[in-house]
Amino acid sequence: MTTNDTICAISTAKGMGAIAVIRIAGENAFKITDIIFKPAKKGKIITEQPANSIHFGTVCDGDSEIDEVLVSVFKAPHSFTGDDIIEIACHGAPYIQQQLLQLLTKHGARLAEPGEFTQRAFLNGKMDLSQAEAVADLIASQSEAARRVALQQMRGGFSSELMQLRERLLWFISMIELELDFSEEDVEFANRDELNELVDEITSHIERLVKSFSLGNAIKNGIPVAIAGHTNAGKSTLLNALLNEERAIVSDIHGTTRDAIEDTINIEGISFRFIDTAGIRSTADAIENLGIELTYSKIKQASIVLLLVDVTDADEKIHEAIQNILSKLESDHQQLIVVVNKTDLAKDDEIERRFSHNAFKELTGNNTILPISAKFKTNLDNLTIELLRTVNLSAIDSDDVIVTNARHHEALSNALESITRVKEGLNSNISGDFLAQDIREVLHYLGSITGQISTDEILGNIFKNFCIGK
Amino acid sequence: MTTNDTICAISTAKGMGAIAVIRIAGENAFKITDIIFKPAKKGKIITEQPANSIHFGTVCDGDSEIDEVLVSVFKAPHSFTGDDIIEIACHGAPYIQQQLLQLLTKHGARLAEPGEFTQRAFLNGKMDLSQAEAVADLIASQSEAARRVALQQMRGGFSSELMQLRERLLWFISMIELELDFSEEDVEFANRDELNELVDEITSHIERLVKSFSLGNAIKNGIPVAIAGHTNAGKSTLLNALLNEERAIVSDIHGTTRDAIEDTINIEGISFRFIDTAGIRSTADAIENLGIELTYSKIKQASIVLLLVDVTDADEKIHEAIQNILSKLESDHQQLIVVVNKTDLAKDDEIERRFSHNAFKELTGNNTILPISAKFKTNLDNLTIELLRTVNLSAIDSDDVIVTNARHHEALSNALESITRVKEGLNSNISGDFLAQDIREVLHYLGSITGQISTDEILGNIFKNFCIGK
Repeated sequence: MTTNDTICAISTAKGMGAIAVIRIAGENAFKITDIIFKPAKKGKIITEQPANSIHFGTVCDGDSEIDEVLVSVFKAPHSFTGDDIIEIACHGAPYIQQQLLQLLTKHGARLAEPGEFTQRAFLNGKMDLSQAEAVADLIASQSEAARRVALQQMRGGFSSELMQLRERLLWFISMIELELDFSEEDVEFANRDELNELVDEITSHIERLVKSFSLGNAIKNGIPVAIAGHTNAGKSTLLNALLNEERAIVSDIHGTTRDAIEDTINIEGISFRFIDTAGIRSTADAIENLGIELTYSKIKQASIVLLLVDVTDADEKIHEAIQNILSKLESDHQQLIVVVNKTDLAKDDEIERRFSHNAFKELTGNNTILPISAKFKTNLDNLTIELLRTVNLSAIDSDDVIVTNARHHEALSNALESITRVKEGLNSNISGDFLAQDIREVLHYLGSITGQISTDEILGNIFKNFCIGK
Repeated sequence: MTTNDTICAISTAKGMGAIAVIRIAGENAFKITDIIFKPAKKGKIITEQPANSIHFGTVCDGDSEIDEVLVSVFKAPHSFTGDDIIEIACHGAPYIQQQLLQLLTKHGARLAEPGEFTQRAFLNGKMDLSQAEAVADLIASQSEAARRVALQQMRGGFSSELMQLRERLLWFISMIELELDFSEEDVEFANRDELNELVDEITSHIERLVKSFSLGNAIKNGIPVAIAGHTNAGKSTLLNALLNEERAIVSDIHGTTRDAIEDTINIEGISFRFIDTAGIRSTADAIENLGIELTYSKIKQASIVLLLVDVTDADEKIHEAIQNILSKLESDHQQLIVVVNKTDLAKDDEIERRFSHNAFKELTGNNTILPISAKFKTNLDNLTIELLRTVNLSAIDSDDVIVTNARHHEALSNALESITRVKEGLNSNISGDFLAQDIREVLHYLGSITGQISTDEILGNIFKNFCIGK
């Protein structure tokens, strides 16, 4: 299924730049360009130019010149969408960009829907659905890990694995369906032992993918970290200190504003999303105070909770804060780091005595206790190491596939359920048609990830491999 | 004078888009690209590719893949700057753009200064200074007229005229300087009558250019329009009504937000900048009230003042408002339009009787009186026609050069002063060396517009034309 009408859109970021790029894709991309484009070299016709060539000239609306531009030519099928594509690089005034779009639509191009070029690349078979989804992820990536995982997925690492497994499962279902056709003859085309092995393999593979999602989601959306503690514990000083560390690295060429990165800190390629919580003034007031309730609901969203305590506070106050926060945490999903701040205001041996004895460690449930001075940036390194410890970095560094997409996660979870039923069916010697139904479900869910359509395909696979002419 | 070190910058607008373009210019542009770019077709070397060709592949930092990109190759001297240029079109994540820039600087490129590519185009002789300035104007253009004038200037229409006149003047000064060399012989190489004619021609030409600046400035920065009137006269209703008219035209594909266009309205390609003024509550309070003083100072900045009066107000109140505003206007530079609003609340014959009699016309100093209903958008067409009447549209539609640049305006004004002195000198038969000095000033000012350096050039011109071997 392909669509060939000609679509156009501004492909570069909104607003004013030195240049902007307008993309035109579809069967009339060249024809329309030949109408509006006057090449500097007279007599040049875009339709006749070689693929991947660039041409200088002027875009004109009749006699009126709009802008001097560069026109890039990409020819079907060797283009991003698989269509003929023209890219016009014009001067980056938003006004000029609009004028060009208006001119293109006047000559028969249609404004593209969001993502329509990538959708068309999928429809034209240039990439599968999960690759198309990775294009969007790559464009939205805000950290090294997110970029890396998206690029890997876009290049088909994820889908080629799934397709391979699916292919092998397809062969089995073809065999089982063939058995059903010849049911009166009681033949067994599909070797049940081999199928059993494949099912185990697929199960463990899908289990691994499903499990990778908690990391994948953290990579894609950032790992939520709540900073809790009394109002004077130094939360914003800590946040600024961490931000400064990062900003020193990206400094000069960082295009984003302080607003945008204020709450997200990249540490070694991983985004940590710091959740602002209102200060917890006193444990006694906690339950009654709505603002503090809100803080606790925010803490619930976090994977990591940094409880900031002030070294100058009395032991009692600190112990209360720790007990209070521990009562709110779900230890399965959430990790607590007790950060003892303002170490510059206390002596080392005092800190050692108060926070390193066993009773205190027991009180904190053996969660990490970390003395720092946010003000003087003392021991911040250890804090970032602690934060990174919560992330399975080796999985990112290896070429293991990590699922970052919630739709894929859902489809994989469903596929896991179905494949478990297949396994049970095999164990209980269920009949071929029931088995086929469960396998078809697995195929459906796996196929929905890459965008294949299963029913036609299963049929196609039977006829292709067997050709019995029935 | 050329500089060849390799510079790089993001050329597309800031922020996230589908794609972004990074430009690299200089002698190592190809070499650096060959280090970081792994072409899809193995063994391809960018340095060996033809000019104006596009190549697909992956940008890598060592073994680590950064992004899939398109690389465009432009070869010196046939490029924008005259250098070897590479443009890398990557996925539009700001994070990826930063990574690429960091990678380029790591391999020896330098981050470009603002405007450095265009500056380099000027230094490499690809364009003169006024053309370089027009590139910036084109990118900043926000209306049809601004775009058109900038494009014309970028294509050299303005400078070629100046250069031609300057060339002819250069010939004369060569002759006069030659006379000075042979002063003891009392020869006259430069025909004074011909020089006189040329000076007249240049004077009238520069006069026209200097005069065009008030229009040019209005085109470039928008024509300032103040809407004055009592608070309840319907100022914001009128502004919204005018805005809606415009937005209906640009509607769907308009990329800018309401905030950005709120006060600027494009009417037939001309920007009108509406200046918000606080309502004038009563003439008696006027002088005492600081807010109203501010209004008057804003009115002073306007080329056009729309005085909005409410048809339901008593004649006295309206007359007072008109007299009050007239006392603040400088009739030479400012045009008043009395807009009688809320005509929906009065009968036609009443409006006719109150605002069309001669005494009222006399009161308004024969400025335009225009009855409208902003609420029902009645007669708004006539208002926009009135606004456009203040602009010399025919000058924009013709190919006449319009000066939009304040630097050029200043240089031209100075040149006009100097050429006037040349004329006076010719009339009073001033000696050759004084004449030469004034002419040199004219040459200097005209040359400063296009970026030529005059002293070396004058010498060069003498030796080139005469070659006496002295």
